[in-house]
Amino acid sequence: MKVTALAGGIGGSRFLRGVQAALPDANITVIGNTGDDITLHGLRICPDLDTVMYTLGGGISAERGWGREDESFVVAEELAAYGVGPAWFGLGDRDLATHLVRTQMLDAGHPLSDVVAALCVRWQPGVRLLPMSDQRVETHVVIEDDQGQRAVHFQEWWLRLRAGVPARSIVALGAERATPAPGVLDALADADVVLLPPSNPVVSIGTILAVPGIRDAVAATSAPVVGVSPIIGGAAVRGMADACLTAIGVETSAQAVGRHYGGRGRVPAAGTATAGLLDGWLVDTVDADTVVPGAAVAARPLLMTDLAETTAIVRAALELAGV
Amino acid sequence: MKVTALAGGIGGSRFLRGVQAALPDANITVIGNTGDDITLHGLRICPDLDTVMYTLGGGISAERGWGREDESFVVAEELAAYGVGPAWFGLGDRDLATHLVRTQMLDAGHPLSDVVAALCVRWQPGVRLLPMSDQRVETHVVIEDDQGQRAVHFQEWWLRLRAGVPARSIVALGAERATPAPGVLDALADADVVLLPPSNPVVSIGTILAVPGIRDAVAATSAPVVGVSPIIGGAAVRGMADACLTAIGVETSAQAVGRHYGGRGRVPAAGTATAGLLDGWLVDTVDADTVVPGAAVAARPLLMTDLAETTAIVRAALELAGV
Repeated sequence: MKVTALAGGIGGSRFLRGVQAALPDANITVIGNTGDDITLHGLRICPDLDTVMYTLGGGISAERGWGREDESFVVAEELAAYGVGPAWFGLGDRDLATHLVRTQMLDAGHPLSDVVAALCVRWQPGVRLLPMSDQRVETHVVIEDDQGQRAVHFQEWWLRLRAGVPARSIVALGAERATPAPGVLDALADADVVLLPPSNPVVSIGTILAVPGIRDAVAATSAPVVGVSPIIGGAAVRGMADACLTAIGVETSAQAVGRHYGGRGRVPAAGTATAGLLDGWLVDTVDADTVVPGAAVAARPLLMTDLAETTAIVRAALELAGV
Repeated sequence: MKVTALAGGIGGSRFLRGVQAALPDANITVIGNTGDDITLHGLRICPDLDTVMYTLGGGISAERGWGREDESFVVAEELAAYGVGPAWFGLGDRDLATHLVRTQMLDAGHPLSDVVAALCVRWQPGVRLLPMSDQRVETHVVIEDDQGQRAVHFQEWWLRLRAGVPARSIVALGAERATPAPGVLDALADADVVLLPPSNPVVSIGTILAVPGIRDAVAATSAPVVGVSPIIGGAAVRGMADACLTAIGVETSAQAVGRHYGGRGRVPAAGTATAGLLDGWLVDTVDADTVVPGAAVAARPLLMTDLAETTAIVRAALELAGV
């Protein structure tokens, strides 16, 4: 079976471990978000891709869910001693080696997709990990504070401001000029099932879908498309997805996110350019009354408390997909 | 008093601590060798400048004499796990932060001399530390092994091959096009005394002197110029200076090195383009019979066993200079 999943960072990675456990023989392709990428100290950092790679490759910090196990922060401490920021980005020593290798390869002219493949030679994540695009796309957030209205990098809003300053808008800079990385569109067209894990629907899944061609490929694939709600009972399971949803005018509820993705069976209303994406939408038991026109909805507990529970969630999503 | 010293790495740095102890009120300018500089993992590394900065700034590893105290090697371990070399260069985590800051500043267009000044804001070495040049000069060594004759970076010859493969020649690539960094020539012209510490006469002092203008400025300064022999009883005190001296056809002896620098009082022989540099040449007691035409020679024990002994060596050099 060929499974293609879109993925952000921590939540998506945990879900993918469940996919691997549920379908040990499947060929799994992961299309990773690169909108969180940032250049710090001259190093190109791809947090979401690395979180997937480390999680599936056995190198993730189980405690934090991001970064490396057995991590140290000596270089960051020294950079701070030089007065070189930012202090809000947790740059671990082990993690830094990944960024050094990646930056060198990018500077040598290799596309990001080749770099990811090279890094995965070490990590053997057991999936084909593709960046959504080889072009640079960076999510920026327009905020308004005592310095007036200005755009900050998503990482600054997320990590330094803890998404505590309302986002006036969220923009995936460069997305409109980006093209899907090699393999991305084929992986969506040829899949037996496409999964939208419970990643952030705005700055993870939404950013991937913002790369021209990807949204259309999801809408057009002959494979069933099933999403898993990142919202349970009106709150984000993890992260600060509510602040992102508010910025794009979507209510923080399983139903609103499902309708934001849209059901594929729904005939687009007149004047609605965007086709729906979902054949199925898996929500938590507390959101069992969710209705998404054009998509089948199923409900079960969605907290990914451990691998067994996560695997059961994946199985429910596959069942909803009819595969 | 204005003291100007040329300096390589470990030996030069230790000697400079003696200069600071002997002349606590002096204005000391250090012209540092950059021929050992190398780019690894995209990071610009300046081993000699950093050794001076760390030694005088209190950050040096007392045990190793190079790199940082309380150092770890986590990043290097990770790079090795990615299969990214070279393994022969000891790249510490604390040290790496210095290279990150430097590389970022260089990439932003700042000249190396400004970068060194910025790094010294943290380290406060108590001297004005100048690179010999803002242009890139890299020492390469022509060797012949089973792969035939080829040039390797000085660091590869020194660290990986431990200077065990004979050097056919040693070339300071780029030196002929380099110009002295801002302040270098003035520091030599305006000095009250110029010191050549017991650094490597070929790949440290020799490389600095290879930058057009610097050798002439040493030869022309009105200040007395005194050198301290790095050779004691026919052997290098530290490092593998004998392999370097052999490569340029100079015997490994205090007398030969003194004559290689040359006495300033000597009238250049017909056909000899190069003026001598030394007014005084301080050798070890075992080399007391040294004669350098045109330079005064004095002898005393030269092992820099501790700061007190090093300070006494510096005082003897200053006495020989008559200051």
